[in-house]
Amino acid sequence: MADDASSIEVLNSSAQGQLKSVIHRIERLEREKADLSADLKAVYAEAKGNGFDAKTLRKVVRLRRQDKAKRQEEDAILDLYLSALGGL
Amino acid sequence: MADDASSIEVLNSSAQGQLKSVIHRIERLEREKADLSADLKAVYAEAKGNGFDAKTLRKVVRLRRQDKAKRQEEDAILDLYLSALGGL
Repeated sequence: MADDASSIEVLNSSAQGQLKSVIHRIERLEREKADLSADLKAVYAEAKGNGFDAKTLRKVVRLRRQDKAKRQEEDAILDLYLSALGGL
Repeated sequence: MADDASSIEVLNSSAQGQLKSVIHRIERLEREKADLSADLKAVYAEAKGNGFDAKTLRKVVRLRRQDKAKRQEEDAILDLYLSALGGL
């Protein structure tokens, strides 16, 4: 199948079916992502309507994400060191 | 509420609750978006494993999206003209 799919000549009907399935799956996922982006926009707009500053909200979300990533990284290093010592 | 929420002094407990709710909703939507991005990556990886070229798949998706947007725009203009004429 790999050779058939990448052939520059023609795709056989199995590869054609595969291609259609792949494209439709990608398009569905992209649509769902676009829907979530629209939902996010609506949440920010609603928050703005309640007097919150959207730019600061975005900053809060970014800081919390960075903080979480940093904590996860520190935990991973801690686990590494502890396991190297054979536990606590 | 609007004045309380944007106050630089302090957020009252109602505004605090609102803020927490907003941040959690944003974080949930962002997580779902990240999950979809991971799913998309997996679809492309699987397709690549079946011999499809990922770059060309991305191009196909883009072309289909542009084509669809163009068709929708043309339909909207057609509807505008037809309604201006009072129908067909």
